[in-house]
Amino acid sequence: MTYCVGILVEDGLVMIADTRTNAGLDDISTFRKLHLFEVPGERVMALASAGNLSLTQSVVAMLAEGVEDPETGTRETLYEAPTMFRAAQLIGRAIRRVRAIEREGFEAAQLRFEVSFLFGGQIGDGPMRLYMVYSAGNFIACTQDAPFLQIGEHKYGKPILDRAVTFRTEIYDALKVGLISIDSTMRSNLGVGLPIDLVVVRRGTARTEVVHRIEAGEPYFHDLRERWSAALRAAHRAIPRPPYGPPSSS
Amino acid sequence: MTYCVGILVEDGLVMIADTRTNAGLDDISTFRKLHLFEVPGERVMALASAGNLSLTQSVVAMLAEGVEDPETGTRETLYEAPTMFRAAQLIGRAIRRVRAIEREGFEAAQLRFEVSFLFGGQIGDGPMRLYMVYSAGNFIACTQDAPFLQIGEHKYGKPILDRAVTFRTEIYDALKVGLISIDSTMRSNLGVGLPIDLVVVRRGTARTEVVHRIEAGEPYFHDLRERWSAALRAAHRAIPRPPYGPPSSS
Repeated sequence: MTYCVGILVEDGLVMIADTRTNAGLDDISTFRKLHLFEVPGERVMALASAGNLSLTQSVVAMLAEGVEDPETGTRETLYEAPTMFRAAQLIGRAIRRVRAIEREGFEAAQLRFEVSFLFGGQIGDGPMRLYMVYSAGNFIACTQDAPFLQIGEHKYGKPILDRAVTFRTEIYDALKVGLISIDSTMRSNLGVGLPIDLVVVRRGTARTEVVHRIEAGEPYFHDLRERWSAALRAAHRAIPRPPYGPPSSS
Repeated sequence: MTYCVGILVEDGLVMIADTRTNAGLDDISTFRKLHLFEVPGERVMALASAGNLSLTQSVVAMLAEGVEDPETGTRETLYEAPTMFRAAQLIGRAIRRVRAIEREGFEAAQLRFEVSFLFGGQIGDGPMRLYMVYSAGNFIACTQDAPFLQIGEHKYGKPILDRAVTFRTEIYDALKVGLISIDSTMRSNLGVGLPIDLVVVRRGTARTEVVHRIEAGEPYFHDLRERWSAALRAAHRAIPRPPYGPPSSS
């Protein structure tokens, strides 16, 4: 399993991804799922992936080496896309190219072609964007009304995002809430695990401000997990018991 | 969608179920999904259902009217089961009977036969039990190590249960945490909604202690939702910002 979350606030973009990959519960490995494409000051793009690892790696490799345009025969990489919208279209095209290559083998093996991506960043002084790209190559953009997108095992970590993130949330607070969302997922699903990769991009800078990997035992993340657990326990203790019981219990 | 949770603690049993049923997002109705079978002092059983409503209603009706034993031809209801284990087996048999009746029509319509049940209670001075019964009619019992079971849209509400419920949790605290779990699910998934049905059974009494329906606007549940939202906001605010940013941001 995988869990990745992207948050697009007024200040900029946060993307966080776990690194656990499993082919069955007895075959668990660590793979990077958060990929950066950066020319500092000119463009910065981050791509997080979920789904079949062989497919997502092929898409990422194709985006770095160049996706062929079937009409002109030319190849285009993410470094040449003029806008984030065109870059997201290029990812869609890469997904369709990989599908065309793998379809026969996948059908023979009765494997499902399942991939999804979060793609965020900014090119030049164009708009900062965060997209979710689906298996079919189509995509949606994150809006101010719901300033986050998730892929993979997303349900466990959604309640805290729903409650705590708005477009006005400060960017490092958004990062913190994203890490709490990751923690909630890890706590309830063993298929999502450390290390955690994260990137922070401030709007208008076209460069990464933070690129960091949280390894097991890192003091800040350990402290966040402890504090969050303690806070949740305190929070539900502070709520009165339901008034439905017999007089002696309420 | 549906969300039901059962919690089996030292003091007894809590079961909570929402009532929302939808056939597409534009056709949403309220149906009871929490059913009681009670002879106070002699036996008390609660059955919560998820899945196709026509199937779960048929199973519940059959359990009340009597499930035919294919070998002897006699009919048995939940009121005659001598133990909770035998009662759970009877539910399994009812599911298989409904499947036999509906299979042809479901296959023709390419519908999936999907049902699941939480079944808890106590018969006489036998052990109090909480089971999850699957579409195939097989079932598992709740244990002290993880004293809750969920059916339906279970992921949003699992993190709080994982953190806050143990076998030693007081029964009305368990009810409170269950309601928080329901709230987390309703907040993130519109397919789960009010009213909420709940039942509390104290161990060794063989009778319901509380049977209650929470309607929209009920003051306690409204207050619980407000307090929980406020507590979550306060909880994440109390956690320091990540130390990864540039000095000015940390």
